[in-house]
Amino acid sequence: IIHMQNLNYHSLRILLKLKRAHFLHGPYPATHFGPKACILPNPTSVMHIQDPASQRLTWTNPPSNVLVIRKIHDESLVEPFKELCRYLVEEKQLMVYVERRVVEDGTLKDDELFGSICNQLCTFREGFDDISDCIDLIICLGGDGTLLYASSLFQGSVPPVMAFHLGSLGFLTPFKFESYKTEVAKVLEGNAAITLRSRLKVKVVKAGGEEQGEEHNGFLCPHGPPGGDAGKVTLQLQVLNEVVVDRGPSSYLSNVDLYLNGRLITSVQGDGVIVSTPTGSTAYAAAAGASMIHPNVPAIMVTPICPHSLSFRPIVVPAGVELMITLSPDARNTAWVSFDGRKRQEIQHGDCIKITASCYPVPSICCHDLVYDWFESLAQCLHWNVRKRQAGLAQPSDSSDTEN
Amino acid sequence: IIHMQNLNYHSLRILLKLKRAHFLHGPYPATHFGPKACILPNPTSVMHIQDPASQRLTWTNPPSNVLVIRKIHDESLVEPFKELCRYLVEEKQLMVYVERRVVEDGTLKDDELFGSICNQLCTFREGFDDISDCIDLIICLGGDGTLLYASSLFQGSVPPVMAFHLGSLGFLTPFKFESYKTEVAKVLEGNAAITLRSRLKVKVVKAGGEEQGEEHNGFLCPHGPPGGDAGKVTLQLQVLNEVVVDRGPSSYLSNVDLYLNGRLITSVQGDGVIVSTPTGSTAYAAAAGASMIHPNVPAIMVTPICPHSLSFRPIVVPAGVELMITLSPDARNTAWVSFDGRKRQEIQHGDCIKITASCYPVPSICCHDLVYDWFESLAQCLHWNVRKRQAGLAQPSDSSDTEN
Amino acid sequence: IIHMQNLNYHSLRILLKLKRAHFLHGPYPATHFGPKACILPNPTSVMHIQDPASQRLTWTNPPSNVLVIRKIHDESLVEPFKELCRYLVEEKQLMVYVERRVVEDGTLKDDELFGSICNQLCTFREGFDDISDCIDLIICLGGDGTLLYASSLFQGSVPPVMAFHLGSLGFLTPFKFESYKTEVAKVLEGNAAITLRSRLKVKVVKAGGEEQGEEHNGFLCPHGPPGGDAGKVTLQLQVLNEVVVDRGPSSYLSNVDLYLNGRLITSVQGDGVIVSTPTGSTAYAAAAGASMIHPNVPAIMVTPICPHSLSFRPIVVPAGVELMITLSPDARNTAWVSFDGRKRQEIQHGDCIKITASCYPVPSICCHDLVYDWFESLAQCLHWNVRKRQAGLAQPSDSSDTEN
Amino acid sequence: IIHMQNLNYHSLRILLKLKRAHFLHGPYPATHFGPKACILPNPTSVMHIQDPASQRLTWTNPPSNVLVIRKIHDESLVEPFKELCRYLVEEKQLMVYVERRVVEDGTLKDDELFGSICNQLCTFREGFDDISDCIDLIICLGGDGTLLYASSLFQGSVPPVMAFHLGSLGFLTPFKFESYKTEVAKVLEGNAAITLRSRLKVKVVKAGGEEQGEEHNGFLCPHGPPGGDAGKVTLQLQVLNEVVVDRGPSSYLSNVDLYLNGRLITSVQGDGVIVSTPTGSTAYAAAAGASMIHPNVPAIMVTPICPHSLSFRPIVVPAGVELMITLSPDARNTAWVSFDGRKRQEIQHGDCIKITASCYPVPSICCHDLVYDWFESLAQCLHWNVRKRQAGLAQPSDSSDTEN
Repeated sequence: IIHMQNLNYHSLRILLKLKRAHFLHGPYPATHFGPKACILPNPTSVMHIQDPASQRLTWTNPPSNVLVIRKIHDESLVEPFKELCRYLVEEKQLMVYVERRVVEDGTLKDDELFGSICNQLCTFREGFDDISDCIDLIICLGGDGTLLYASSLFQGSVPPVMAFHLGSLGFLTPFKFESYKTEVAKVLEGNAAITLRSRLKVKVVKAGGEEQGEEHNGFLCPHGPPGGDAGKVTLQLQVLNEVVVDRGPSSYLSNVDLYLNGRLITSVQGDGVIVSTPTGSTAYAAAAGASMIHPNVPAIMVTPICPHSLSFRPIVVPAGVELMITLSPDARNTAWVSFDGRKRQEIQHGDCIKITASCYPVPSICCHDLVYDWFESLAQCLHWNVRKRQAGLAQPSDSSDTEN
Repeated sequence: IIHMQNLNYHSLRILLKLKRAHFLHGPYPATHFGPKACILPNPTSVMHIQDPASQRLTWTNPPSNVLVIRKIHDESLVEPFKELCRYLVEEKQLMVYVERRVVEDGTLKDDELFGSICNQLCTFREGFDDISDCIDLIICLGGDGTLLYASSLFQGSVPPVMAFHLGSLGFLTPFKFESYKTEVAKVLEGNAAITLRSRLKVKVVKAGGEEQGEEHNGFLCPHGPPGGDAGKVTLQLQVLNEVVVDRGPSSYLSNVDLYLNGRLITSVQGDGVIVSTPTGSTAYAAAAGASMIHPNVPAIMVTPICPHSLSFRPIVVPAGVELMITLSPDARNTAWVSFDGRKRQEIQHGDCIKITASCYPVPSICCHDLVYDWFESLAQCLHWNVRKRQAGLAQPSDSSDTEN
Repeated sequence: IIHMQNLNYHSLRILLKLKRAHFLHGPYPATHFGPKACILPNPTSVMHIQDPASQRLTWTNPPSNVLVIRKIHDESLVEPFKELCRYLVEEKQLMVYVERRVVEDGTLKDDELFGSICNQLCTFREGFDDISDCIDLIICLGGDGTLLYASSLFQGSVPPVMAFHLGSLGFLTPFKFESYKTEVAKVLEGNAAITLRSRLKVKVVKAGGEEQGEEHNGFLCPHGPPGGDAGKVTLQLQVLNEVVVDRGPSSYLSNVDLYLNGRLITSVQGDGVIVSTPTGSTAYAAAAGASMIHPNVPAIMVTPICPHSLSFRPIVVPAGVELMITLSPDARNTAWVSFDGRKRQEIQHGDCIKITASCYPVPSICCHDLVYDWFESLAQCLHWNVRKRQAGLAQPSDSSDTEN
Repeated sequence: IIHMQNLNYHSLRILLKLKRAHFLHGPYPATHFGPKACILPNPTSVMHIQDPASQRLTWTNPPSNVLVIRKIHDESLVEPFKELCRYLVEEKQLMVYVERRVVEDGTLKDDELFGSICNQLCTFREGFDDISDCIDLIICLGGDGTLLYASSLFQGSVPPVMAFHLGSLGFLTPFKFESYKTEVAKVLEGNAAITLRSRLKVKVVKAGGEEQGEEHNGFLCPHGPPGGDAGKVTLQLQVLNEVVVDRGPSSYLSNVDLYLNGRLITSVQGDGVIVSTPTGSTAYAAAAGASMIHPNVPAIMVTPICPHSLSFRPIVVPAGVELMITLSPDARNTAWVSFDGRKRQEIQHGDCIKITASCYPVPSICCHDLVYDWFESLAQCLHWNVRKRQAGLAQPSDSSDTEN
């Protein structure tokens, strides 16, 4: 039994000394500096973090409800989708949830053989039916967009996500469909490696509105809380990739101010600004010139989009800061905000966008491990440093004639 | 008393729930995902980290020995240096250490008034006298280079460093000299905010050599350990900014291989590669195109220098990985390695460079706080997004005539 | 007398040999290569170009009609504007043209002293009155936008433009207002240095439409030519900075195909693409990552905006090519095109945008000369390589301590 | 007959009006601006340029001497080399020149069958034998380096160059070897399309030395001209890709000053600076972040290497300027210069490097045409915007589920 009242900094230091293990966040930093200096002990500000590299999935009860998400307009996914559903329903006796329009898709309805399976599927409609409390596992078929969509359905706690690519590897879809039976079976047994992909909690507070308490747990309140003043619209969303503030349909530049922990850091003049998670660093932020950040680095990235200032580089700040974005007081145009590419809306003078790290990450099941999967996706999706060695740039070293 | 055997994951979770405080590394990530999934508890891999934002300096005993470092060839520093020494010796009764060549500097020796102070200074010579165990506080006068130099003197534990800029703000020199008495007095009392700037531990293992144990604690062994085989040279150094592997004096490209946790990640063809700390992200890495990382993000940055592949972007990986760099098997030229710009040496086939996060950070005393200081230095040192708002790019929005 | 029939390549070569002068476009390239090879003479493809560096303004008749353009919403320009008009009307007896809304501006109408001048001004309304044939000289007051606006008024031949900045230097506004009398007087005398800033001729051919002949001379035909089929809308515009094709109000990416001389060169997946003149290379294209091109380089720049492909760099092609942009066949969203930030409109499947260098450049009067003016504006407007030398990056070279 | 005394600007304008043809450099710019302004006629500064797009090879006499250059250490080139030599000697009865060490290569000497051919080859040694006046055609086998080497052999006029790649396409090696007989035969007949790749003439004037006259025509004078003062060393070289000034073996930064037409433009603080031709824009300059310039744009590119200033972008200036580089007066380290990666040497205070466009371009024979060949090489050598369309960045547009 641990007597909490005794858990002072001294005993924590004993804990700390138990093992100088190798953690993904790095070694334990020393707390003494030279012969006489040390960090002022402050037990209330000690964090206890399970090493990300050792995080593995377990089930408190056998999973029974599986949500299957697939890209709709891609015909090549129809057969794999049917095969997967049949496997989950018939072989694994699981309850399978799918979006209603997936089932209403023409080619599915016409398939009589699939009819019996189809009748056993639970269907829901986005925006009408809330399934966020009853799903034990999510399986995605298709591109990275399916995972962004899954993320948007779960504004609070997110069940584990297993994502298959059909064609080419995606950043978020590490599994090959070929061996889906083996892979799904393994996951259902538990003990899979997972990456907790951090999300950002984004609140839009409209001018004249009051910020809502955090108790809404990230649910979407497009028309404000019940009984709220119609003028005080608040939107709160979790994003997996990024929040983008840009000039929207205007040809003219947006001028937005960026605050960090309440202090004005800089003004952004240009096409806009991207606030992204490490997961998002390989998406739109990469296109805007950002460095690529491994998903397990606890950080938030701020990337300007086509900034006027040539010296405005992307920055990476600790995940614990609070960012805020507003229109600059002298901005002559409004700006537009979007969340993982969705829910685009206008931002006017007086509105503000508040961004913090969410406590509800997306637990993404790894195919190999969190380091291998990431570098594999960099090479496959971004052609990161992929080149023919023979061709190269025109350099005399290519000619041995020039080497004396 | 904590009974370690009882410290299971359940009790850790109680610890975790004590307070959902706001940490610089972000909120506590959830450990349960949906109704039935959670992270497999693994108490041996739980890390206990004092929140970086709350780290403050304290003294276990009153500090008595102060090392003063100053840039040598800059005449403008002579008077401030003398003033500071007099203050530390006469008013604060501290023992002041200086490098011998600082005292032998012409203008100092000729100053008779300073003579009595000068006699009370302890002098040492780099490479001959080891003062790393007897310094309680370091005070730097000059540019960022003084701090890199201070870092190089302390290969193990580093005493707190207080750095003054004389002219313009540096990345690592936040204090103005004007108010040095007040500022130094405050630091001597303790309770100053500090940033633990992570360092990298870099080992060069020459072909045929054996890697030395970690017990050398980072000391420089240019000729190998006593009794060691002359062919097994090992160098181990702590760097504050970066390790650079480049083509050295050759016009021809270096081809080096980069391994992460023992796995080949990529080959670098180009001028070289920079492995840097977040502190180093604003130094050479910034010039090579990297994003800027706040010093409290636990990460290591890998930045190619003029890579042949247009898609070879800088990457940011968790601080806990082990990186290794070797010449590529097909490299026709050697490469050169340097450590914070020093100790440049050749790397040949079979040699390898191993890089991990060091457990001996540089405790750098903040002027304001770790967030404010950083953004201030970005603006001052890199002109980060500093521009005249009026001028701007040529855009029609500058002309109200064009707005209808 | 030159007998044209005799002007064969041989005689041209005699011309060529007259003087190997130093031209801005570079030296005469050799036409013989080694002992026996030479370029096949082809007199019909010889170009005769007046060296840009030697281009100076002259008047065939004394200029009498001056168009004065000023930024409207900037109150600080009212006094300089009145002063300039008074000078031109009273001292120089010139006919001054201004846009009607400039005169109807509140502060102007209330100024009784300016009344008599005001009555002598010719006013016109954009889109209603065509003044493009009667203006001898354009004077701009304000930012770069005034020049873009001037350019838009003259879709055919453009009179010389003299541009004053009031506050800080612009890319296109080299003259200080302080000495406006002397400067304007000099220009009216002729012999000023001018830079011919190339423009791009952009045609939008809507699906089902037929391309209109070139005889429209760049006039805006928003509703098609008289008698044309309503479905065959054609727009033709001259741009001084750039044509931008982007995703418009959509969050989703545009997919556009880029053709060069009729051949598909590449597909652009990202926020869009900028086709710019060298003048435009320091505007939006610079923000999107382009290199900066001197206005006298005969080239067209193609710059992707946040491209998905990390290896998609901006390219610079000879000014004589024809570029064409269409939606990619598989694009699921439309794209939007704008011209120097104006006339934004949607591009749909089947539409195409054709871009060639215009034969109607903007003759922009230099303040000093075309090289000096450009570098001055780079430093002033983009802070090009402007930095404090003292601060610099954190490098040990800043510390003489570290230099042995 | 043209009477030169009569060739005034008026008659030139008649010439100009003969045909408003479509030139690669763009359309004829107008010379009249509005009703009354025009360019001051100045016949002495009119340039007559054969349109680059129409330049085709012809022979004044049948070519008889062919230089064959091949990469030495690449064994895969031995057979193609022998095949090509046999074809040129036996079938085409041409005199073939090769470097002596190419023939002394082990595998060649051991081949008895090739002996008779070998005996008919003319051999030369670089630096001893000057063959620059007797070669009619150059054929390269191997990478881009062979062309750089060929360029270095011909410091004055360069014979046409035909370059074969064996493995993968190079920037400068457009021809496939498979069909070499047909291709070589076509070139020997004449009428091939050629690209004149501009070179830079670079002079290094050492402190105390006097600049040599231009009559040396680009010949290498490493020890100064005969009879010259030993202290006045002058080197003059033609480069096809670039001149690089960098920090050489030093870890410390070079500080160099850049002058344009005699005026100080900027100081470069960083790893160095690249002055390149358009051909070189896809080589080292691309790795340093430059935009890519088509070889027929008459321009010179200046690209900083890892500059300290974040706003120091590459610039593109007209080919007719004179650039000069010196050490900055306050530079504490020397710099090093190299020419197409060769002849590396130190630059000290007082030395200067003068760079102008050369009048001796490399006439490079096109495989298809100068536009097609370039884009083909961009895609092949730099993976320019090459990507899998399916994979892409993680964007919700990949999921049709997210599209409403």
